[in-house]
Parts: sequence; structure tokens; C-alpha cells
Amino acid sequence: MPYRIEHDTMGKIAVPAEVYWGAQTERSRQNFTIGGQLMPRELIRAFAIVKKAAALTNREAGVLSDDACSLIASVCDEILAGQLYDQFPLVVWQTGSGTQTNMNVNEVIANRAHVLRGGNLTDEKKLLHPNDDVNRSQSSNDSFPTAMHIAAYTLIVEHLLPRVGTLCDTLARKSEETMHVVKIGRTHLMDATPITLGQELSGFCSQLDHGLRAVRHTLAHLAELALGGTAVGTGLNTPRGFADRVAAHIANLTGHPFRSADNKFEALAAHDAMVETSGALKTLAVSLMKIANDVRLLASGPRCCIGEILIPENEPGSSIMPGKVNPTQAEALSMVCAQVIGNDVAINVSGMSGHFQLNVFKPVIIFNLINSVQLLGDACDSFNRHCAVGIEPNLPAIQRNLENSLMLVTALNPHIGYENAARVAKTAHSRGVTLREAASSLGLVSDEQFSDWVRPDRMVGREE
Amino acid sequence: MPYRIEHDTMGKIAVPAEVYWGAQTERSRQNFTIGGQLMPRELIRAFAIVKKAAALTNREAGVLSDDACSLIASVCDEILAGQLYDQFPLVVWQTGSGTQTNMNVNEVIANRAHVLRGGNLTDEKKLLHPNDDVNRSQSSNDSFPTAMHIAAYTLIVEHLLPRVGTLCDTLARKSEETMHVVKIGRTHLMDATPITLGQELSGFCSQLDHGLRAVRHTLAHLAELALGGTAVGTGLNTPRGFADRVAAHIANLTGHPFRSADNKFEALAAHDAMVETSGALKTLAVSLMKIANDVRLLASGPRCCIGEILIPENEPGSSIMPGKVNPTQAEALSMVCAQVIGNDVAINVSGMSGHFQLNVFKPVIIFNLINSVQLLGDACDSFNRHCAVGIEPNLPAIQRNLENSLMLVTALNPHIGYENAARVAKTAHSRGVTLREAASSLGLVSDEQFSDWVRPDRMVGREE
Amino acid sequence: MPYRIEHDTMGKIAVPAEVYWGAQTERSRQNFTIGGQLMPRELIRAFAIVKKAAALTNREAGVLSDDACSLIASVCDEILAGQLYDQFPLVVWQTGSGTQTNMNVNEVIANRAHVLRGGNLTDEKKLLHPNDDVNRSQSSNDSFPTAMHIAAYTLIVEHLLPRVGTLCDTLARKSEETMHVVKIGRTHLMDATPITLGQELSGFCSQLDHGLRAVRHTLAHLAELALGGTAVGTGLNTPRGFADRVAAHIANLTGHPFRSADNKFEALAAHDAMVETSGALKTLAVSLMKIANDVRLLASGPRCCIGEILIPENEPGSSIMPGKVNPTQAEALSMVCAQVIGNDVAINVSGMSGHFQLNVFKPVIIFNLINSVQLLGDACDSFNRHCAVGIEPNLPAIQRNLENSLMLVTALNPHIGYENAARVAKTAHSRGVTLREAASSLGLVSDEQFSDWVRPDRMVGREE
Amino acid sequence: MPYRIEHDTMGKIAVPAEVYWGAQTERSRQNFTIGGQLMPRELIRAFAIVKKAAALTNREAGVLSDDACSLIASVCDEILAGQLYDQFPLVVWQTGSGTQTNMNVNEVIANRAHVLRGGNLTDEKKLLHPNDDVNRSQSSNDSFPTAMHIAAYTLIVEHLLPRVGTLCDTLARKSEETMHVVKIGRTHLMDATPITLGQELSGFCSQLDHGLRAVRHTLAHLAELALGGTAVGTGLNTPRGFADRVAAHIANLTGHPFRSADNKFEALAAHDAMVETSGALKTLAVSLMKIANDVRLLASGPRCCIGEILIPENEPGSSIMPGKVNPTQAEALSMVCAQVIGNDVAINVSGMSGHFQLNVFKPVIIFNLINSVQLLGDACDSFNRHCAVGIEPNLPAIQRNLENSLMLVTALNPHIGYENAARVAKTAHSRGVTLREAASSLGLVSDEQFSDWVRPDRMVGREE
Repeated sequence: MPYRIEHDTMGKIAVPAEVYWGAQTERSRQNFTIGGQLMPRELIRAFAIVKKAAALTNREAGVLSDDACSLIASVCDEILAGQLYDQFPLVVWQTGSGTQTNMNVNEVIANRAHVLRGGNLTDEKKLLHPNDDVNRSQSSNDSFPTAMHIAAYTLIVEHLLPRVGTLCDTLARKSEETMHVVKIGRTHLMDATPITLGQELSGFCSQLDHGLRAVRHTLAHLAELALGGTAVGTGLNTPRGFADRVAAHIANLTGHPFRSADNKFEALAAHDAMVETSGALKTLAVSLMKIANDVRLLASGPRCCIGEILIPENEPGSSIMPGKVNPTQAEALSMVCAQVIGNDVAINVSGMSGHFQLNVFKPVIIFNLINSVQLLGDACDSFNRHCAVGIEPNLPAIQRNLENSLMLVTALNPHIGYENAARVAKTAHSRGVTLREAASSLGLVSDEQFSDWVRPDRMVGREE
Repeated sequence: MPYRIEHDTMGKIAVPAEVYWGAQTERSRQNFTIGGQLMPRELIRAFAIVKKAAALTNREAGVLSDDACSLIASVCDEILAGQLYDQFPLVVWQTGSGTQTNMNVNEVIANRAHVLRGGNLTDEKKLLHPNDDVNRSQSSNDSFPTAMHIAAYTLIVEHLLPRVGTLCDTLARKSEETMHVVKIGRTHLMDATPITLGQELSGFCSQLDHGLRAVRHTLAHLAELALGGTAVGTGLNTPRGFADRVAAHIANLTGHPFRSADNKFEALAAHDAMVETSGALKTLAVSLMKIANDVRLLASGPRCCIGEILIPENEPGSSIMPGKVNPTQAEALSMVCAQVIGNDVAINVSGMSGHFQLNVFKPVIIFNLINSVQLLGDACDSFNRHCAVGIEPNLPAIQRNLENSLMLVTALNPHIGYENAARVAKTAHSRGVTLREAASSLGLVSDEQFSDWVRPDRMVGREE
Repeated sequence: MPYRIEHDTMGKIAVPAEVYWGAQTERSRQNFTIGGQLMPRELIRAFAIVKKAAALTNREAGVLSDDACSLIASVCDEILAGQLYDQFPLVVWQTGSGTQTNMNVNEVIANRAHVLRGGNLTDEKKLLHPNDDVNRSQSSNDSFPTAMHIAAYTLIVEHLLPRVGTLCDTLARKSEETMHVVKIGRTHLMDATPITLGQELSGFCSQLDHGLRAVRHTLAHLAELALGGTAVGTGLNTPRGFADRVAAHIANLTGHPFRSADNKFEALAAHDAMVETSGALKTLAVSLMKIANDVRLLASGPRCCIGEILIPENEPGSSIMPGKVNPTQAEALSMVCAQVIGNDVAINVSGMSGHFQLNVFKPVIIFNLINSVQLLGDACDSFNRHCAVGIEPNLPAIQRNLENSLMLVTALNPHIGYENAARVAKTAHSRGVTLREAASSLGLVSDEQFSDWVRPDRMVGREE
Repeated sequence: MPYRIEHDTMGKIAVPAEVYWGAQTERSRQNFTIGGQLMPRELIRAFAIVKKAAALTNREAGVLSDDACSLIASVCDEILAGQLYDQFPLVVWQTGSGTQTNMNVNEVIANRAHVLRGGNLTDEKKLLHPNDDVNRSQSSNDSFPTAMHIAAYTLIVEHLLPRVGTLCDTLARKSEETMHVVKIGRTHLMDATPITLGQELSGFCSQLDHGLRAVRHTLAHLAELALGGTAVGTGLNTPRGFADRVAAHIANLTGHPFRSADNKFEALAAHDAMVETSGALKTLAVSLMKIANDVRLLASGPRCCIGEILIPENEPGSSIMPGKVNPTQAEALSMVCAQVIGNDVAINVSGMSGHFQLNVFKPVIIFNLINSVQLLGDACDSFNRHCAVGIEPNLPAIQRNLENSLMLVTALNPHIGYENAARVAKTAHSRGVTLREAASSLGLVSDEQFSDWVRPDRMVGREE
């Protein structure tokens, strides 16, 4: 492959002739052949916002020329338009500060700018210097966590929340539609007193609603940006007012209420905001796991299990059992939940392991967080479109189970007491008869009383 | 051991003659000889509040006599005064609904009430029935999670938050006192640009401050009570208005803003509030792990490591190395953090595993949550009193390291550019000379310029 | 409370007059009021073995008098007989090396020995010195991990393995008894081709059998003892041959094949043996969670779910629903599994966090490991005695489900091909008819062929 | 995009005209737009082995023609040669049985075979049927877990073990080279008695050596294959002897000792083998985290921390601090370890969540396991080549620290007792003098005795 020679403070190195990245990127590319997970595209985009906002602020502060600022902004806009993604070849498993990805961005911007102005990649002298111009007033230590926050916040607000919200809406609509479908309740996997299908589904909505609130609570911490702290949080080599102004530019460019972190030392040294957000995401995962499990259990059968709801049949379910249909969307969703719960532990371990002025688990943290947000959003969307919207009650099965349930006996408690009611249930169970028959044979409840007292539709709560 | 015969709906069973518990408690005691961790005392206390509040509400609703209510309340007050704790012998590892502990409470209250009125434990007929009176308008399925929320909320607000707050205050005071002690910063465990000790400590405060906010955010969900949902969330067998009124009583008895959960189906079937709270607690644990690690690293030595701060010497550190003193409080705190991070996973696994109308991992969830809250509160208190309050700068070590640092070179960037500055640092490093000497020998910076530009006390940020 | 004055290298301190512990124990007791979890009794017992073995070895090496050795051994025997447990008041959350518990043991032995010989606790001079005699040739850094290994190994071999083995035997017997009970299989919670109940249960046995093997594999690493490494692994201040001889004594005293670790540096600095063992324990927990879930799902109902097996009815299941019986043993077991999976993470975080020559998360590691071993052993025993031994097939339910299953159609694949078989199944499903009717109406299979080809009892595998 | 019409038992569907996949793959591709993580290439390769081995076995059993077998084998060989990877577009987050990927493989083989024989993708009738021929005697439920085991086993043996082994060898060589470099030991991050650098490094080797053993212990379970169990473990629709023979073919094709699982019911319903293996991998991750941390702490500085070893300088370390060099390989390795510890939890949650005859978390389990194996192997290789091979002692720093250490006092214990030795150390510490001076001023040790007794090189163990 043709190459050109680049240099950095460590000396010369050959890089592929046509790429925009430079020496430091190339060193990382060669030194870290681990895994293969590229630094997430969402982070690269966030970096483009960081670099553009920094350039604008530097210009206003008089430490960057109009021309340099304009050039930097142009390349950032190209990145934001998705045009240069193949110029970011570095993997997650690199230096723990993400310095190499920051330099990758700096180098690509400097070189691409040079070419945009008609320069050549092999020119000894470039219009812009990756460190002195593109990285001006910044360090990896503040720009990388800033990009982390921008990427996470944006993806949560633009991707995750609306998708969970839509699923929540679907479940709420299904809940309303079935609010009067009385069915058996189940506790301990055992038959219990009645409930309506709508009530059951409303519990899912309430879970998701609380989950959304939990995620939203974490946004305030995510909105705090490290930029302006530079190397160790002191803001060395930044012009006066840089931190606040650059945060304002970022807020303006993204449309989200980002602001400068009150304490830059925390913002570099710890990623508690990520840990906190991941804690909310795993709460959501725990909720969705429960929902996915209940949906597949309620749909189980079709003939030899519960089968009280019907869900869409999307694919042939088995390569050997003809005609089999499986709750595949619930399965995909629950696998995603397992992953998110695992990702949370990876984030915890990483978050707790910083030392002094810098946490050097930045790439693995943002990788897992973006992964969790992306997966939860996608899986909710998929589960919603291919499963939840099609949930329907299977009325015959619901009715059959309801009539069979021994736990309707609970309605007798206020009339004959807990212990007598237990005798009725046990008699029905052991003799294989109905509650009515058992109650009558024990002489505890007349037939009329039974009809009057045991009314499933009155056991599901009052309209208050 | 002398015994008496008790019965429940399963038949007769011998229980120790003098205990207040009855048949169902005894069955559980015999059937679950697992572990040995008793149901937490905080939960038993919370149950006493539940039973008292329920009795008051039942009386108001006309479904419990004044006398029965008064008797129940008396026994609850005894429990709250700590008098009957040995009457709760059941372990955490029982039925997943906690039904057996609910019945333990019901039985103890009924039997103790009978004795308070001069009755005898062997009387065939008792004044109160554990199910029909003490458990009136309740199920284990709503009373147990209500007790969970009361216990967790109360312990967080009364135990955890003030102790973390006090530690935060101590660190803030230490930060102020050392705000002008300029020292070397460290990133990647490598020497970096200067920072003040006060700035470094302020990062810890900021972490704890955000952690406290994260925990407080979860209180709204914890304040929602399941009571009134009874068996499956429908409120079967409750008098009109029970849920709201009993929540008001609980708020009144505890002084905390508890309220009835809007959706009782969620409140029984899921414990997302616990999962969410645990997520905030593990965030705090992650923060405290970082702080504990930094404190012991900064205090490491005394002669062969960093040693930039001094911490109290509390105990002989070694059974073999005379005169050794160790950062034992930091160690205890970090072990607690590891436990909390593990507890969080136990809670996640438990929280995701509910089915239909009931999560049956209630005891293990509240056991772990109370454990996390208790440990974090105690450990912060211990760390504060025996370590943080005594943190002092070790000025000679701080000064020696500061003067040695090559990273002061960063101050030259704006004057001679990143690449030249790197040459200065590398030269000093490879030749084992000072930066000043290296800069001068390379002809890049005059002695005067060096004195003017490289001033550690001006590298730690401006007063804005 | 009356007290006496003790001293250590830090000075004087008042301790309760009658206790055997001394100054260092008392300092820890006052400095670490965290949690309340005492250092596990199993560890204290293991320490008694360590101290006795060390005394015997020291005597043989000529560095301890016969008399001192004999005295130390006597007190150790008392501890092993369970007589002095109230003399060990320290909690888990202390120094991370466990030094304070080592000193607690040293002090109790020295003081108790003095009293055994007629001395008085207030005597200025004692017969034995906690450090110079009882701790001779030892450090906390090697004696504590040695006690960890002894405690864990012993509890696994004597407590856990036999209890899991018994459960495995019960399931194997149940499997044999029901090897010809043909029932419906279920995949994706959906009806699938037939299986026998015995086959289904054999899968559980196979899981436990593999789990036992996994745990046994870890014993070799657990059998390696750190003793002889003293402070940092070099064996400073030990007589020649100490490490091997003391390990031989420990093997002799316990009856287990303990041996001296080949590399003492690892044995102090890391607890990978514990992490590895915990990994096997969590594998067992994962298996048991699956088994517990399947048992309760198979027993679900009694009328409105699967109900294909019957399990013992041990307690009234509900405080509000009369006659309800729940799978409580499965619930307790599954809660234990959740705890063990959480404990594993606490152990991982602790195991990875050692520095240089010492891991200082020793107490939290052994606390969690003992907890996991104890809980799994107890829960398997409880589940076995109160549930597994009573599992019986519910033949009517099994037969009803088997006949209903559409997946018997799979037997037609070799005769009419997958796609035609799928048409049969789908037709039966959509029209609500039997497979036989559907196959016949589609003209694909004659009635005779159907009888010949679709025979559930021939679909469960051949006797090979 | 041009398309053709394919069909399956659910009806017709348009697929891109030129691809080899068919209807079921396309349905999955459309129904599961989640994440973007493709089913790992290693699994697809393993599937090619499964399909080839099954074809060979089917031919031998007389249920597949020579020609069909040969065709299937040809396409499998193409896949093994890496030629068709773009034909496997499905993501991990699909049906939990992996049925869709099994069908993807079946469809690609059938269609590619047809084309290889000169057929056209649009031909109504194809030479091979994906289910009846390629999937013959198989189900997804046994072929997917078989591919999981093949992929995991192979990657562990061929990728992970050698790379960890090489790192272990490097560390062993470094250990030998520095076995006589006496340096200070550190416990609790505090100065302790001496150790040699070689001894310190030998602890790392011992950790990895035990870790390798732990991983190898899990291979026996991984070597057990589910194939032959078909849909639910009973082996329905397999020819006599299929299971053993197909395992023999797989062993032959891979060169690894695969064998048929004794119990197929476990092999489908649970993935304890994966959970067990992941437990060993996380043990390795815990070890490597300790090693990575120690290496970077030992190399910390260069001037203001420990700096006792030198590691290779691979890249410029900072975008703002000129001349900074960071322990980037240790950082990448430790991030990988955090990921593996998180992956383990995802696997635990997934492994415990199977129901009845099938665990439907198969894709997420194998995805995480392969990820852990790949990352650990790659990171060990990278750390070895770019860091470990270049570790060198920094002798001046080592000597300086050794001479400063107060813990040399421990050598005085046998001569003057623990308490007197403590006085010496404390005196030296408080007065800022040397141990020699303190010992002398206290009149406890003469100058000659000190020289004789306190010899660091004799405190690091004897040659036995």
C-alpha cells in the first residue's frame, strides 16, 4: 500500500498515503490490535461538535484566526454529515483517556482542512496544527469526557426516550382496550384472585413510566461538561471564560441544555454521571425483562400453557417443528436486557477505577453506555412494532381459566372468615369440584349467597 | 423445651410454649433452616408501622373495633420501642413474598395483645385473629412491599444521607483549608500539570454531592406505597378509600412524605423502585471507592511512595512489621463499596425475576438494600471520624514532588508550541536535568523567560 | 462496665475487664463500628487450626518452647470446641488484611493461656506474647489467607458438596421413577415435541453433576496455603522448612490435602483461588435458578397454569387468599441463587483490587465466599427435604397437555416433509381441530398412517 | 434494489436478488433491526463445521445422498475459507434459540449449492431443501449450541491460551532476569519488608498459570456437544447412532476432542458450560487487572511517584502536556478486564433464564463469551508485545527507595522483640532519621549489630 511519512513528537512514521489521519493515530492503530470494536460513531460525531464549538470560542477569545476557525468548522460539518467516518480507524481498547481518538480527530481535521484549501497531504507544513490549532484550549482529558456526555445525552434524548415512550403508549392503549377483560391473577405462579388484563398491562406502563423518570433524572449530571478543565481540571492554557462560552456553543449546536460543569476536577477524574445513568438504564432493563417475560408467559402455548394473550406471528419458529411460532421479540428484548445489566457492571468496575486527576477507563465506559442506550432503544422499538401493537386477548382461554380458579374463594373472607374460606378451597381442590359445590357441601354458603358474593367482575376493584 | 399447640389452615403444630409467634411462623422456622440472616430489624419496625396504620384506617372505615385497633397499636408501639425483637425468628430465605414474616408479625401482635389483656397463650380463643383482624384489609403482597419502602426510605433519609453529608462537609472544609497548597497533578498515574490539594479534594466533594442528589432522586419512587392493593393490586377486601388513608397515616407516623402508589399492580409485581435506588447507591459506592483509593494513594509511603498527605494513625498496622501504619479506614470503606456493587447485582437479578402479579424476591431485595444503606452510612461515618477529619498536607513531600515535575513544561506551549515544549521535556527526562536547564540548553527559552512563564502557582487556574 | 488497661505499640487502652482480647482488638472494635457482620465463625475456627499448626511447627523448629506450644494448642482446641466464640467481636469491615482479627486471635490465645495457667488478666507480664509467641513465624498477611483457604475448602467439602450431591441423588431417583411418563416438551415456552418427565429431570441432575465437577476443580487451588510467606511472601523470620511443615500439620489436623503454595507472592497479593471458586459457585447458582424456576413452573396452577407436577404443600401460602399453596422452597432457593450471583461480583471487584504484595480486600472476600457456600448448601438441603423428595407427576394434567399438543406433527416430517407438516399444524391451530383431523382434511396423511406415525411414546428417543 | 421472491411456511417474501439467503433470513433481517452486532464470524464458521459433519453423518446413515452430502460439504468449505461471510446479515438480537441464524446457514448452503451446480437463484425448485436436507437430523436447538461449543472451545484453545501463555513466559523470563534485584515490598500501599523484583513478577506468572489451569478445567464441559438431541433433547428424527458419529466427525474436522454430551436435555436447556467457562475467564480478567495495575503503579512517575520499573514509550501521551508518556497498554488491558467482568454478568443472567427444554439466550451468551475470549487473547498479546517484553528495572529508583524504607526494622524482631523494633521505627519516622540512627539513639542495637542484622539482601528468602 502506498504510504507517506508523518511525524509527531516521537519521530517519523509511515501512514497510508491517502488517509487524513496522522502519526499519532497511526501509532495507536498499530499498537492496539485488540478486539475490533471501533470507537462509536456517536462519539466521533460528538467530537466534531466539541471541535467546532472550541474553534468558535477560541476565535471569540482571539486565540484562533477567523480563517482557522472557519476551516475547522467546515471539516466538523463534514463529519456531522457522515462523510469522513472511515477516517476514524481506532478501537475502543486504546489509551484509557481516549487521547488517541482525540488526536485522530485533531489530525483528520487538520489534514482535511489543508486539502480543502488545496494543500497536499505530503506538504511539510500544513495550514493547521492538530495540537496547537485544532486542540487549542483543550486537552484529551476534558474534550473526551465532553464528547462522552454529548454523545450519551443526545442518544438518550433523541433515541431512547421516544422509543420507550412509544412502547409505553402502546401498552397504555392496550391497557385501556382491555380494562374490562376480567382474568385470573397469578402470584407465586399460582392462581390468585382476578384482575383485568388492562390492569395487568397498566403495571407495565407504570414500570416504564417510572423508568423514564429515572433516566431523565440523570440528565442533569450528563448535561455538565468537562471542557475548559484541560489537563487536570485547572483550565491551564484556556482563555478567560472559555469553559462557559464553549458550553454555550455546544448547547446551541445540539439544541440540548448543556452547561459547564461546576467542578472540573470531578468531571475529569470520575465518570459518576455515566455510572448513575447506567444505573437508570439497568433499572429500565430490569423492568423490560419483567415485561418481556410476562408477555411470553401470557402468550405461552398455544395449547398446553397459559395462552391468554395472542401475539403476532412473525417468523417460522423452528427448523424442525413445523408450524411453531415463538415469542421472538420478547426473546430479543430480554437478551438486550441481560446485556445492559452486564454492561452496567463493566461501567461500575471502570467508573470506580480512576486514579487522581483522571479516570482512564473512558473508552470502555462510553462504549458500554452507548451500547446500552442503543440496544434498549432499538429493542423497545422492535418489540413495540413487531409484538406489543399486536397483543390481543385470547378470550376463550381467559374465560376458561377464570372459571376454574379456586382463588375466587377470597371473596368469601369477609362473610365466613379466612379459615372457613380455606376449607372451601381445600375441599374443592382435593375433591376436584367447583368452589360452589364445595361451599355448599360444607354447609357454609348457600347457592344464592355464592352467586351473590363470588363475582369475579366485582373482585377487580371499584371505580373510584 | 415446653411447647403449646397452635393451629392454622394446615392443621396443628407445636410451638415453644412462651413465644408469641404462632403456627405459620413456626412452620417457616422449621421449613427454612437456611443461612441464618434474620429478616432485618428495620423491616420488622416498618411492619409495626404498617400494622398500626392499617388498624387506625380500618377503625376509621368501621371494619375494626376501637378496642381491637387500640390493642394492635399498643403492641406495635412495643415493637417500635424495641421490646419484642426476639419474637421474629424467621430468616430472609423463606417464601419470596415475605408472607411468613407478615404472618409472624400478625401472630405476634394477636398473641401479645391477648396476653396484654390478661389472656393466656394457650387459650383456645383469642381476642384478635392474625388474619381477620391484624391483617385486615391487607395481604402480604401489599404489606410486605409497603414495609420495604418504609424501611428503605427511612434508613436512607435518617441514616445514610446525613452521614454522607457530614463526610462531604469535612472534605469541603479540608478543601478550603488547602485551596492554595500547590502540588503536582497526576493523570494515567503519571506526573501532570499542577493542581492544588484543595482543588483535588473539591473533586471528591463534587462526587459526593452529585451522589447525594442521585440518591434523593430515587426517594419519590420509594415514597409510593403498595398498601391497599391487597393480593394482586385490585384492592380486593379493602374498605373504600383505604389506600390513601393508610398512606396518610404512615406519613404521619413516620414524618416522611409517603403516599399511595398510583399503580398498585406495579407496586406488587415489580420492585423497580428498589432497583433504581440500588443503582444510585452503587453510584455512591463507585464514588467512594475512587475517594478511598485516592486517599490511600496520596498517603502511601511513608517514605517510598507518594506520601503527600498524612492521615490519622489509628492502630498498629502489622503483626510482624513493627511501627507500620496502614490506611485501614480507606480499606474498610472500599470493602463496603465492593459489597454494595455486588448487592446491586443481587438486587438486579431479583428485581427482573418477578412473574405476573407478584415479584417473589422481596426478602432478598430488601435484605440487600438495607445492607447497602447501612454499610454505606456506617462506613462514611467511620471514614469521616477516623480518617477524613485528620487529613493534613505533608508540605515537604508536596514541595519536593512539585519541583521535580517535568509537566510544568506545559506552561511553555503558548510560547514555543507543543512540539518544542515536548523537546524540552524529553531532554530533561533523558539527561536527568531540570526543565530550566533543558530549555536553556536547547536555546528555546531564556532563564528569565522560564522564570516568568513557568510558575506552578499560576498554573492552577485563575480566580474568576 | 469494669475495665482493665492493656497496651500495644500505640500506647494504653481500656478494655472490658473480663474479656480475653487485648489492645489491638479493642482499637479495632472502637474504630470500626460498621455494619455488624462479625468475622465468620468458620474463619475463626480456621485460625485456631493455623495457630495450632504454627505452634507445633515452631516447636519442632526449636523456636517455641514445648510449654508455649502446648498452651497455644490447648486454647486452639477450646476454640475448635466452640467455647470462646464471644471473644471475637470484630466485624468484617476492618483493615483489609484482616490483621485485626489475626491479632484478636493472637491476643485471646495469649490471655486465655495465661489464665489457664492460673495467671490474671491484669498481670503486667504474661506467659505468652501475642506477636512474639502466638504469631511466631507468621504475619497476618500469610495467616489470614491461610485461614481463608482452610475455611472455604472445609466448608465446601464438608457442607456444600454432600448437600448438592443429595439433591442430585433425589432428582436422579425421581428421574428414574418417571422415565416413562411421556409429556409435552416446551421450547420458547411454547409447546414442542414430547419428552418424558424422567428425561426432563435428568437434565437437572446433569446440570448439578457438572456443577459439582466445576466446584471440585477449584479445590486444588484452594488447597494451596500462603503460610510461610509472612509479610510479603519472602518468608522473612520463618525457620527453615516452616512452610511445608506447617502445611503438613494443617493437612493432618483437618484431614484435607492442604499443601504449601508454590508461589507465596501470589498467595498474599491475589485471591484468584477465591475468585475462581466463586465462579464455580455462581455456575451452580445459575443451574439451581433454572431448576427452581422449572420446578415452580411445572407445578404452577393448580388449575390455571401447567400443573404437571405436584410438590409438597408445606405452609399456608397467603395471608388473604385461603387455601393457597406456593412453591416456597423454590423461591427461597432462587433468592439464594440471586445472592450468590451478587456475591460473585463483590468478590470479583475485591479480587481485582489488590496492590503490590497484598490484596487488602481479604475480609470481604471470605465473608462473601463463606456466605455463598453456606447458603447454597443450606438451600439445596432445604429444597431437597421439603420439595424435591415430594415431587410427583400429575398424570391427568400431563396426559391432557400431551394430547393437545400440535407439535406431535414433527413426527410427520420424514414422511411428508417439513412444509407439508407445517400446513397440517397451522390448519389444526387456525381451525381449532386436532392434528389428525387437519392431516386428513388436507389429504396428506390417512387415518391409519397418522396412528402409525404419530406416537408420542416413540418420539422420546430410543433405548440404545 | 432488485429482488426475487422466496417463500417459507409463512408465505412469500422479497429478498435482494443476488444474495444466497432465503425467506427466513430475510424475515429476521427485517424484524430485528436492533443494535447492529452481527452474529460472530466464529460462530458462522463453527456452523459450517456442524453442517458438514451432519451431512457426512447423514450420508453414512443413508439418509442423505452422496451428491447432496458432497454439495453441502463444498459450500461449508467455502464458508470455512471465509468466502461467504457477507451472506450472514443477521444480528445477535434475534430469536433466543438462534433459529434464524441456523436457517440463514441452511438457506445459504442450499442456495449456494444450487448455484454451484449451475442452477439459478430464481429457480422454483432447488437441488437441496434448507430444512429437509441441510438441516437433516438437526434442530436449531441442538445445532446452535453445538456451534457455540465449537466456536468457544476452538477460540480458547487456538487464540486465548497461547497468548496468555506467551505473556506468562515473558513475565517468567523477566522474573528470572530480576530475581536478585532487591527492592522494597509494599503492603496496604505502605512500605514493607524487601522483596526482589523477580519475586514480585513471579507472583504475576503464578496468577496466570493458575488462570490458565482454571480455563483448561472448563474445556471438558465445552467439549460436550448437543448435536443429536434435535428439538428437545430426545433425538427425534435422527438416525441411529447419529449423535456419537457426528461428534466424531466434528472432532476429526477440528482436531479437538469433541464428544457427544451424555445428557442432551441439559445441553439444550442450559448453558452451564458457558457460564462455567465465563467464570474462569473472569478469574483471568481479575488476575490481569491486578497485573496491569501493578505494572502501571510500578512505572508511575517518572519523577513524582514510584518509577521502579521502566516500560516502553509507545506514543505521545498527551495532546496538551508535551513529552508525557503513559502506560497505555496497561490501560487497554484493564479496560478489557472490566469488559470481561461485565460480560460474565450478562452471561450469568442469560444462563439462569432458560425455561423447560430450551435456554433462549443463546445468541447473547455466545456473543459475550466470544467477545471475552477474543478481547483477553488480543489484549494479552498486545500487552506482551508492546509492554511486558520491555519491562526493565529502574535501578537508581529501586535503590533509593530500598534504603529509605523503615520496614527493614522487621529484621530486628528476632533480636530485640516486636515492641522494641516498633519503637525504633517510630523514632526514625517521627524524627526523620534513619533506622540505624534511631536504633542507636535508643540504645537497643549497636552499629555493628545493625549492620549485621539489617541486610535487605538477606530479607528476601533463602535459597532452599
